[in-house]
Amino acid sequence: MDCGSSGQAKNGLSAAIISVGDELMLGQTQDTNAKWLASQFTLRGVVTREFRTVHDDLVAIESVLRELSARHDILVMTGGLGPTEDDLTREALRRAMDVVEPLEVDAQALAALDRWFIDRGRPMSANNAVQALRPKGARCLQNIVGTAPGLHANIGRAQIWCLPGPPLEMESMFETEVAPHLPHAVMSTAAVHSFGYGESFLAEILGARMARQRNPLIGTTASGSIVTARIRGVDAQAHSAAMESSIQEIEKLWAPYAFGRDQETLAGALGKLLVLRGERVSLAESCTGGLAASMVTAESGSSAWFAGGAVTYANGAKIDLLQVPHELLAAHGAVSAPVARAMARGCAALLKTQWAASITGIAGPSGGTDAKPVGEVFIGICGPRFEGVKKFRYPGDRASIRDRAAKSALALLRFALLGPEAFASAMIWEWNK
Amino acid sequence: MDCGSSGQAKNGLSAAIISVGDELMLGQTQDTNAKWLASQFTLRGVVTREFRTVHDDLVAIESVLRELSARHDILVMTGGLGPTEDDLTREALRRAMDVVEPLEVDAQALAALDRWFIDRGRPMSANNAVQALRPKGARCLQNIVGTAPGLHANIGRAQIWCLPGPPLEMESMFETEVAPHLPHAVMSTAAVHSFGYGESFLAEILGARMARQRNPLIGTTASGSIVTARIRGVDAQAHSAAMESSIQEIEKLWAPYAFGRDQETLAGALGKLLVLRGERVSLAESCTGGLAASMVTAESGSSAWFAGGAVTYANGAKIDLLQVPHELLAAHGAVSAPVARAMARGCAALLKTQWAASITGIAGPSGGTDAKPVGEVFIGICGPRFEGVKKFRYPGDRASIRDRAAKSALALLRFALLGPEAFASAMIWEWNK
Repeated sequence: MDCGSSGQAKNGLSAAIISVGDELMLGQTQDTNAKWLASQFTLRGVVTREFRTVHDDLVAIESVLRELSARHDILVMTGGLGPTEDDLTREALRRAMDVVEPLEVDAQALAALDRWFIDRGRPMSANNAVQALRPKGARCLQNIVGTAPGLHANIGRAQIWCLPGPPLEMESMFETEVAPHLPHAVMSTAAVHSFGYGESFLAEILGARMARQRNPLIGTTASGSIVTARIRGVDAQAHSAAMESSIQEIEKLWAPYAFGRDQETLAGALGKLLVLRGERVSLAESCTGGLAASMVTAESGSSAWFAGGAVTYANGAKIDLLQVPHELLAAHGAVSAPVARAMARGCAALLKTQWAASITGIAGPSGGTDAKPVGEVFIGICGPRFEGVKKFRYPGDRASIRDRAAKSALALLRFALLGPEAFASAMIWEWNK
Repeated sequence: MDCGSSGQAKNGLSAAIISVGDELMLGQTQDTNAKWLASQFTLRGVVTREFRTVHDDLVAIESVLRELSARHDILVMTGGLGPTEDDLTREALRRAMDVVEPLEVDAQALAALDRWFIDRGRPMSANNAVQALRPKGARCLQNIVGTAPGLHANIGRAQIWCLPGPPLEMESMFETEVAPHLPHAVMSTAAVHSFGYGESFLAEILGARMARQRNPLIGTTASGSIVTARIRGVDAQAHSAAMESSIQEIEKLWAPYAFGRDQETLAGALGKLLVLRGERVSLAESCTGGLAASMVTAESGSSAWFAGGAVTYANGAKIDLLQVPHELLAAHGAVSAPVARAMARGCAALLKTQWAASITGIAGPSGGTDAKPVGEVFIGICGPRFEGVKKFRYPGDRASIRDRAAKSALALLRFALLGPEAFASAMIWEWNK
């Protein structure tokens, strides 16, 4: 597979990621480990060439280990290390290593398991002791978060790392046991995130900057209504001047929709603006029912700029908490511009904040009418010498309507903080009505 | 690969799922399509035998299409159908089909694209027109949610379905264009979800019921602190008596931690109990900042039993909204049992509900002390003739502490509704302190 076009080091180590579990093949569980591992490899200039997923099946696991160890430097396999009957990684590794002796007990791993249960005041079951078995010639890796030890072995020139399936345990073990054996970073990556415009239009704005021969290489992705430009460069410096100027160029081209880089979120970008001005915000939510507030409070340090919120799902709560006049609700209905405006004003007063946003709408699947269909949402913003309401019609199901409405409220707050002109002119896709 | 042990039909169609995109191989984007597609196949008795992920690379996509079409009945490939230069699925399919003529314009698909843009009052860019190209002998599939049409073709005996990468577009196209060509369901699956106990202990309780030769086959999985028993049966009836009795047996063995089946959530299970009693709940959240409320309001119909909530992130909000006495905060601190108790009581009064839960704690990463470390959370519950507070020490980062605390609050409300004894005796892992 030619990966030169992906801007990856030609001479980098080659890796394969294998996820084990019937629950994955049956579509019952979302595999998040493969993505996480690939991002770790990318950071270190290791090229992930294959992703595989296999059943809890001894023959299948053994054969994928044999096949992939013949053509890659590094194999990381997650899952199948637990205490139950369908945890087959230990035995499959033994077979793929051509070890004829049965699995043997690793005394150190057994002692660690014992300690884990003693620390928690629970007896260790016989099931759990199985986790301290390993093939002869393999090494157990310490699990400081859970019970299942990992395994390390060589098959030919390939390094095999078997890690537990639960993401917290896998990530912790990767960092302590695997990462020290990988190269240091040789590739730099950056991301510029935007909200409010479609991917194809944003890509068109970038034009020739997205050519596949370029270094740094620029591509776009979209997820959860956030469109992201991904910038990747191969360079001696961690973050070259060419990278930085590409990032700034994209931010300028995508203004005011570009809100942040890398790990930055819409809520974080909003917080930055508020902190600069020494002001705080509060949120009044009806149909999103706490989702916007939970996006805000997911940010560490948000207490500096977020006072709190009111989840006013019932009309009574809108009246009691936010002082929305009963007559206003009777005249216009809860899903209306005047009520959105009153909710925002009432929320700012209740929580004593300079800024507030309100969200009221119909998330569905029931509750829609011809006049006010599912997806109709009003978002009100108030701030010092500022007041505005926008009406939206969101497509999608309940979950995406709620997600889009919550993000729109944060984006509109950000636009309002950038200035009344930005608020007035900013569109949010074709959802603005 | 021997999949008999997975309880799947021996004579079922064999499928492979291929995800295309550099962003996947680089670990920048989480692939959720493969899981969703696999679950659709499972429902219909189609056995997913391989998952592959490939770079945006013509040679790579062509070769995986050739390799997998030789050994499966159905290939579904997602991604690479967009309008940009790195969308290569159309051309790779042409090559894998051994079509020598260049891609041709599909008049119907082009007209549909035109309409899509006219409906939205935007001009169609030249980039977008590229999406109406297809290999000779392939058929375009209608996209009613976005712009990229899908493709259908045959390579040998294999049916190839190319679907767009964005999940909403992919799912909609699968349902309208692919599903009608698949067998009807022959396999039944069910799930029993629990919260509050570790997977290995719950698996041990099931014991021999988890034997791999059994029909229905029972396995356990864990995700986001929810431990689930998965029951799968091959049967003429959609839901056999053996399935039903297995489900009921697990629910009994896992009581009171088992809270629901299949699509049921912790919030939904709580709602059921409240609706039965004609009572409502409200939520007062500090460190979870709206997360518990957003879990509740994610449930359609929750307005029947959820009045609203107060996100009281700042101490001032606890005093103003929930009438927590200033002296109580000064004497015990915001993260304390007396404050949790006062928050719950104040919330029930504010929102006029029979029941209320409060959550106050330290989600980190900063803000912890020796006396009150990161992860320390108090949850208060009040109801008719009931009051209780439990103290927790959650492991993990900010996101998992918040997630576990929000779920614990819903679980404790459910235990309290089941009766004071259930509340008093129920443990939530080793997090209860």
